[in-house]
Amino acid sequence: MHILDDINTNSDLRELPEERLPQLCSEIRDFLIDTISRTGGHLASNLGVVELTVALHRVYDPMRDRIVFDVGHQCYTHKLLTGRKYGFGKLRKSGGVSGFPKPGESAADPFIAGHASDSVSVALGMARARTRLGADYDVVAVIGDGALTGGLAYEGLSNAGQSGEPMVVILNDNAMSIAGNVGGMAKLLSRMRVKPGYIGFKRWYRATVGRVKPLYSALHRVKEFVKDALLPGNMFDDLGFYYLGPVDGHDIQALESAISWARDMRVPVLVHVLTQKGRGYPFAELHPEKYHGVGPFDPQTGVVKGSGRTFSEVMGETLCRLAEVDERIVALTAAMEEGTGLSQFAGKFPHRFFDTGIAEGHTVSMAAGMAKQGLVPVAAIYSSFLQRAYDMLIHDVSLLRLHVVLAVDRAGLVGEDGETHHGVFDVAYLSTVPGMALWCPASFTELREMFHWAVSGETGPVAVRYPRGGEGEYRESHVEIATVLREGSDVTLVAYGTMINEVLAAAGQLERRGVSAEVIKLGRICPLEPAPVLASLAKTGRLVVAEEVCRAGSVGTRLLAEAAGKAAFAYRLLDLGTGIVQQGSTQELRAAAGIDARGIAEAAMELM
Amino acid sequence: MHILDDINTNSDLRELPEERLPQLCSEIRDFLIDTISRTGGHLASNLGVVELTVALHRVYDPMRDRIVFDVGHQCYTHKLLTGRKYGFGKLRKSGGVSGFPKPGESAADPFIAGHASDSVSVALGMARARTRLGADYDVVAVIGDGALTGGLAYEGLSNAGQSGEPMVVILNDNAMSIAGNVGGMAKLLSRMRVKPGYIGFKRWYRATVGRVKPLYSALHRVKEFVKDALLPGNMFDDLGFYYLGPVDGHDIQALESAISWARDMRVPVLVHVLTQKGRGYPFAELHPEKYHGVGPFDPQTGVVKGSGRTFSEVMGETLCRLAEVDERIVALTAAMEEGTGLSQFAGKFPHRFFDTGIAEGHTVSMAAGMAKQGLVPVAAIYSSFLQRAYDMLIHDVSLLRLHVVLAVDRAGLVGEDGETHHGVFDVAYLSTVPGMALWCPASFTELREMFHWAVSGETGPVAVRYPRGGEGEYRESHVEIATVLREGSDVTLVAYGTMINEVLAAAGQLERRGVSAEVIKLGRICPLEPAPVLASLAKTGRLVVAEEVCRAGSVGTRLLAEAAGKAAFAYRLLDLGTGIVQQGSTQELRAAAGIDARGIAEAAMELM
Repeated sequence: MHILDDINTNSDLRELPEERLPQLCSEIRDFLIDTISRTGGHLASNLGVVELTVALHRVYDPMRDRIVFDVGHQCYTHKLLTGRKYGFGKLRKSGGVSGFPKPGESAADPFIAGHASDSVSVALGMARARTRLGADYDVVAVIGDGALTGGLAYEGLSNAGQSGEPMVVILNDNAMSIAGNVGGMAKLLSRMRVKPGYIGFKRWYRATVGRVKPLYSALHRVKEFVKDALLPGNMFDDLGFYYLGPVDGHDIQALESAISWARDMRVPVLVHVLTQKGRGYPFAELHPEKYHGVGPFDPQTGVVKGSGRTFSEVMGETLCRLAEVDERIVALTAAMEEGTGLSQFAGKFPHRFFDTGIAEGHTVSMAAGMAKQGLVPVAAIYSSFLQRAYDMLIHDVSLLRLHVVLAVDRAGLVGEDGETHHGVFDVAYLSTVPGMALWCPASFTELREMFHWAVSGETGPVAVRYPRGGEGEYRESHVEIATVLREGSDVTLVAYGTMINEVLAAAGQLERRGVSAEVIKLGRICPLEPAPVLASLAKTGRLVVAEEVCRAGSVGTRLLAEAAGKAAFAYRLLDLGTGIVQQGSTQELRAAAGIDARGIAEAAMELM
Repeated sequence: MHILDDINTNSDLRELPEERLPQLCSEIRDFLIDTISRTGGHLASNLGVVELTVALHRVYDPMRDRIVFDVGHQCYTHKLLTGRKYGFGKLRKSGGVSGFPKPGESAADPFIAGHASDSVSVALGMARARTRLGADYDVVAVIGDGALTGGLAYEGLSNAGQSGEPMVVILNDNAMSIAGNVGGMAKLLSRMRVKPGYIGFKRWYRATVGRVKPLYSALHRVKEFVKDALLPGNMFDDLGFYYLGPVDGHDIQALESAISWARDMRVPVLVHVLTQKGRGYPFAELHPEKYHGVGPFDPQTGVVKGSGRTFSEVMGETLCRLAEVDERIVALTAAMEEGTGLSQFAGKFPHRFFDTGIAEGHTVSMAAGMAKQGLVPVAAIYSSFLQRAYDMLIHDVSLLRLHVVLAVDRAGLVGEDGETHHGVFDVAYLSTVPGMALWCPASFTELREMFHWAVSGETGPVAVRYPRGGEGEYRESHVEIATVLREGSDVTLVAYGTMINEVLAAAGQLERRGVSAEVIKLGRICPLEPAPVLASLAKTGRLVVAEEVCRAGSVGTRLLAEAAGKAAFAYRLLDLGTGIVQQGSTQELRAAAGIDARGIAEAAMELM
């Protein structure tokens, strides 16, 4: 690790002789494989953009210019090159370097990232601010072909293309996204990739026109003429971008020259870069999806350390069983086939499985159309990403009371991915959707049975929310609106989902301290049936509600509203406050927020 | 009105000789102008699609096939041709025909509409359900060039183009949307419109290949060959659609033949139709924007009956004044320049005004980028449409605590546009956005001052919400978190925004019945400061909260949660329940929901 250790500033990198760059890239790859094999993280996408990131840092000054990474999980090399190597020991852990760009971590990170497809919009806003305020910096968005399937990217490109704002969009095309890509955009890109005549012409064009600086001013007219006469148009031209590429994403010289040229054109330019996901690590090259977001693994063998059975897997299996007996059931995902546990379904029922790409809004609206015409669509989407479909849930699904089933995965704290990925708003926003039923399994068995009910028993919009990972000690099944799991006389403890494990443990701790806690598990939180909690509260006079969501719209506030006015009682609401929670293990985060067993027991003791 | 009266079924229309169609269209136009001049409604867009709708109804059976209108305000001719002529006397009024498609109104309306850009997604869902369930009907989406600027439409097109599902998308291109169109798509369409060679070739192609049925099976390969050899590609081809057009949208024969051909191809086909907004009514042809959604007018002179001054106008003027002294201020709208009162700003500060097209998500993400780099962006968006940007508000604006100012227009009941347009969810969803401040002016003066504060005083995300239309009796200014407008001892009445007029009137009615009501007006509802209400409640022991939003996440439920546990008290929450409210005048709707002065006074009396 000689070169990497000597890169302390952007100047160091720019002054590095070209011939030493391959060694630098090789060192970065070794570092990434070594680090991520111990910490877990996003491996394949980061291995794919090593040369691209080095080239970007040689063309731009990341402290002055604004390099906006889309989604952001491909930012590791960017972080290594901006003085954060020593934070990688605790990558994605509490107090360590985040797996995503964070302005609070370094001025080299211009914006937050985590959700897909916003980079062009954000970069356009920055470019317009730059122009409006007369500032002097460049703006570049780096977006993958996967994120390009999102409609937000199209809105951004369409507006940016016509803005005339000098800005560069790097299309990092690894022909993969997380799973294989879907939709028209993927087909378009694959056609553009295999057009050698086009590439050859662009090379010649770059080699001649591109090198003659005075020609730049006449470039636009030349381009229009050349394009109309010789080149097939593509969507990016149509949207008003100057299209440049494809460029080999592992050839630093080619990248530097294309990106410099794009930067100097002073119009909106899209540089189409071809990269290989997992590049340089044979296991990841072969199975990039497996090594997209990966836990710790053995770097020699590539064997990923086992993780337990997950709610996602159980959902996928359950759906397969239900689909065998009900022909109307179809499954939908927004580019998360593997993550949502739908791979088995996709294999078994290929004609009943629909991957829309990163397009949660479309997924929900399409599901509404399906439901209107007699199918039973099940859309499996992460809680945090489902925020993109809030309007479609109200407008397309709920106004017609359509039976669309939402499998809300990654609900609650997700751990290492941090504040952009925690699913802590869904309880609030789903509860505002008219007619929505919201079920919260606390064990695998409950998930199976609630899912069965959601598909076969409910007739309107219904969501089943469950967390990342697996079940806890609680393995029972109570598919009821509310269940008294433990009777007590001093205080009423309420929870739903896997938080019931913390509450049951707290009740045990309280018992040892002489306090008799009544534990109520809510199976359905919307519509909320307050009677069981109110009955218990009438008995105990003390209420603690513990939940892994933001305070606004929480079950705790809704229970309080139901209990209001009747009589005096003491209470504590335990939750995540605003909902902004940093990275860390879920258990650390629960403890820090005071919603673990100990925090719950303490809160109850304070009421005594 | 001879022909129109004789069209009672779809067969009547299909059997009508071609030569009588122009007279039918002329009768429909006369009927529309006459009706809308009395009731108000969407005029220009409906006049533009008379021939297109007649052609669609001659090719498809609207009771069996699924014609999905995007946005839906252009559905009047569709309604006239499906037996709803007699409901037009009360068009958009309580109990009359809705201005938008409504499955509850007729089986000829396959889906709800109101928000833009969802039609392709919904239609694709329907087509997939048709194929999956082995049913026999055709699916067609009718989408305007304006709605095509929305990313949701792109997600739908991208997925549909690759689906292979037989379905037709009619692109109703009037080169307008509501205001002039913006962005890359508009430029692309205008280029396609003026390519006569292309049109000529398509005509020949249609006339030869299109008529020889056996060639259909080989069509895809022919198309690919022909396209590669001769035709410039366009975005729709790129996305996997067979592109057909442009077709003259006022030539019924041409439309029928193009649409029939598209239907029979059994692949995803996009038919590009050129229509003229306002067609046949000179005033609307000249000023289509003015006659887009219009109040009653004089059909002879085109003079629109005067409406009063609106909150939107006051916002626009205020923003102009603020922008004069603060160079950092820029204004953003999502295709609603006129509706949000920004026309004056756009004229005065053309380089500081950004119309993104129908792209609320992009608008908010771009505003975040602007704010990050030092501008003060003000995004004026209707409450109901802002739902599209929920995720962007959380992810792009709030996590970095960026100072983005939202001018939330059409908050609360909007009247005649009905359930798809009421702004009744924003209080709930904006309150979940971390760090959001939410101000609610009740008079023009308060709007001015609160807006000034939002722009100059706040430093994080801030929203100012105000209703459609103008102020009521209350004209005072209390720019405070909470204000006791009237002291009393028997009951505490709480409201915010223009609902304060109803509450003050109720307090007057109560006084006449011997009840002393204390009236508290909330100026800011998020963060919610409960102390003033709690202090009053401690005095009166009775609470009534009246608001024009859905129950979930309402200020009433949050106040109850704050009041819970302290002591016994009596209360009534007056609101809109689930939030689904039909069309009607705002005053009718308030009365029906029991949130008008009378309903509030009654609720208070029940507590006595």
